[in-house]
Amino acid sequence: MADYEYLLVKHEGDTVRITMNRPERRNALSEAHLLELLDAFETAGRSDARGIVLAAEGKAFSAGHDFADVASRDLAGVRDLLTLCTKVMNTIQSVPQVVIARVQALATAAGCQLVATCDLAVAAESAGFALPGGKGGWFCHTPAVPVARNIGRKRLMELALTGDAIDATTAAEWGLINYVVPAAELDTAVDALLARATRGSRFGKAVGKQTLYAQLDRPEADAYAIAVEVMASLSQSPGAKEGMAAFLEKRPAVWPD
Amino acid sequence: MADYEYLLVKHEGDTVRITMNRPERRNALSEAHLLELLDAFETAGRSDARGIVLAAEGKAFSAGHDFADVASRDLAGVRDLLTLCTKVMNTIQSVPQVVIARVQALATAAGCQLVATCDLAVAAESAGFALPGGKGGWFCHTPAVPVARNIGRKRLMELALTGDAIDATTAAEWGLINYVVPAAELDTAVDALLARATRGSRFGKAVGKQTLYAQLDRPEADAYAIAVEVMASLSQSPGAKEGMAAFLEKRPAVWPD
Amino acid sequence: MADYEYLLVKHEGDTVRITMNRPERRNALSEAHLLELLDAFETAGRSDARGIVLAAEGKAFSAGHDFADVASRDLAGVRDLLTLCTKVMNTIQSVPQVVIARVQALATAAGCQLVATCDLAVAAESAGFALPGGKGGWFCHTPAVPVARNIGRKRLMELALTGDAIDATTAAEWGLINYVVPAAELDTAVDALLARATRGSRFGKAVGKQTLYAQLDRPEADAYAIAVEVMASLSQSPGAKEGMAAFLEKRPAVWPD
Repeated sequence: MADYEYLLVKHEGDTVRITMNRPERRNALSEAHLLELLDAFETAGRSDARGIVLAAEGKAFSAGHDFADVASRDLAGVRDLLTLCTKVMNTIQSVPQVVIARVQALATAAGCQLVATCDLAVAAESAGFALPGGKGGWFCHTPAVPVARNIGRKRLMELALTGDAIDATTAAEWGLINYVVPAAELDTAVDALLARATRGSRFGKAVGKQTLYAQLDRPEADAYAIAVEVMASLSQSPGAKEGMAAFLEKRPAVWPD
Repeated sequence: MADYEYLLVKHEGDTVRITMNRPERRNALSEAHLLELLDAFETAGRSDARGIVLAAEGKAFSAGHDFADVASRDLAGVRDLLTLCTKVMNTIQSVPQVVIARVQALATAAGCQLVATCDLAVAAESAGFALPGGKGGWFCHTPAVPVARNIGRKRLMELALTGDAIDATTAAEWGLINYVVPAAELDTAVDALLARATRGSRFGKAVGKQTLYAQLDRPEADAYAIAVEVMASLSQSPGAKEGMAAFLEKRPAVWPD
Repeated sequence: MADYEYLLVKHEGDTVRITMNRPERRNALSEAHLLELLDAFETAGRSDARGIVLAAEGKAFSAGHDFADVASRDLAGVRDLLTLCTKVMNTIQSVPQVVIARVQALATAAGCQLVATCDLAVAAESAGFALPGGKGGWFCHTPAVPVARNIGRKRLMELALTGDAIDATTAAEWGLINYVVPAAELDTAVDALLARATRGSRFGKAVGKQTLYAQLDRPEADAYAIAVEVMASLSQSPGAKEGMAAFLEKRPAVWPD
């Protein structure tokens, strides 16, 4: 595993834990930090892990883009930065592992985007979520993309236009995160959900996750065209064949992958 | 009405009740079962009924695809089966009747897909909902298509990746079903919602339902292009003219269709 | 400000208040009424206001299309009316101001469409929401377009197929509106949410709002393509530069626009 300046990365058993560790800057997503996140997710994606936890150290989950790294850039420079950030988000959704956000504190702007982008998210009661560009001079244009795909439109508009934070309970009610728990139970809850989400065939799960993202946001007929073809093909995989055989023979499955 | 092996079909008044009746196989959706469902929905669709109830006998609503009917199929065979299954789902959404699921017990995989596909759904407290492929070797690729169009993304991911069941109360909170009631009140609740949903002009309702599915999942401007043209055309229908005349003359409407 | 027959329009400070004032017709949206709404929103859109409140006088927020103005129209005439109505809805979403609905009573059909179309909405407990075409002879085809983009599918189907009203608490739970408050607190709640939603750079907020509507309803990759380009361009705006400078210099921002 590479040596990172802004991240702590541990590969324990089936899980890679990527922890943003720049608390003195509230885990702001400078270009250097984003490059490390991209490398960490790509490396974890090539590993044999089943799950990835994205966590953070300190009093913020992530404050989003680092204005110190944005303010002096010209148009091309900001476009490069946002393209890199989008690539990090795409990578989170395209790696074969289940990715879960462990949100211990405030996640704002591109930090909130990270939570919205992860497959699953569990937050402590002390967490909060905001798209603060809405009360400033720029705007959370790109963070609003995955947030809009997690919550209803009126709620998105409130978050994006007001810039104010919602608490973790509200985020769970709106569907931005899966669970909210007392801070002391955060690790237990994250690990329990990740364990439930990473059972079964590794290959089947990876294709399953990737196909979900491929079919979402499309007209239903287009989504079926994708899902039918993938599901038919995957019926011939060793994992699918073992799963059906085990079920029919009433024995536990032994996943080949 | 045809004589079915796996279904009970009754046409009572304005309602066709299609009941899956293969409880010893947990109403698993073999090709033969799917062909009967397709025929039953197509036949009901051509009838003068206003509503269709999809119900089930036994300890499961439906366990989804029948692995005994899948395991020996090659790619082309599974593709045919999934294409047939998708055709059943499309038919539920394209028939002119309002289709309501009456869910008395666990609905899993393609069984959960049936519930998500019906226009409306009412469940007993004893019901549950799962996409169990997520803990196996294949994956609930096609069942996730309509489920994703009923609930938020993080909740879809939890259902699809974990494979675990949610209870009926959670399903109602997430929007996968309309109501959850005590088991003893299930028929009353189904019939009450169906009665409310099948009033008015038969023709207007049929086009209304079909146009909803045509405009969903599209950018808002595309949806308006569809809805404006349909609504303008339908303004000239006997039902629309009678509805407006009755309103303006302050008398009850007499629907011509 | 123009002199309207069906509207009261006041420009107070940063806010334009557009109040439908045809209570004896339950604020039904005749062509003349829609033309006034279009003019009022276009005029407000060209003003220096930061926010627009859409309110109503009387015992209904709006009853939707005025059947007295529809019944005698031929196909082309209804198409013209619905195209005008859609233009009003598009204008609400394209004006640079934040638009908030203040819903004091029942909003039905195109009246419910107005609420669904506004960026934000606050309702009194006395309000209600319905797509009543579902129990009549025509159908709420076009009102269902924005309603479908605010709430889940099963709930949309219940509203559209039954035609029955839901109360304001249910509307808030479903995400059709942001808040429900006692009637006596309605103005306070509307103004408080609007104040939170109209802070910051005027220009940044306007582009922010418009970009949200541009990226919604699209596959995530398409949405990112839009959002990245807009956000990169806007990084060079005076508002964005001032916002970042103020943040980095730890001083309050002075918005240049």
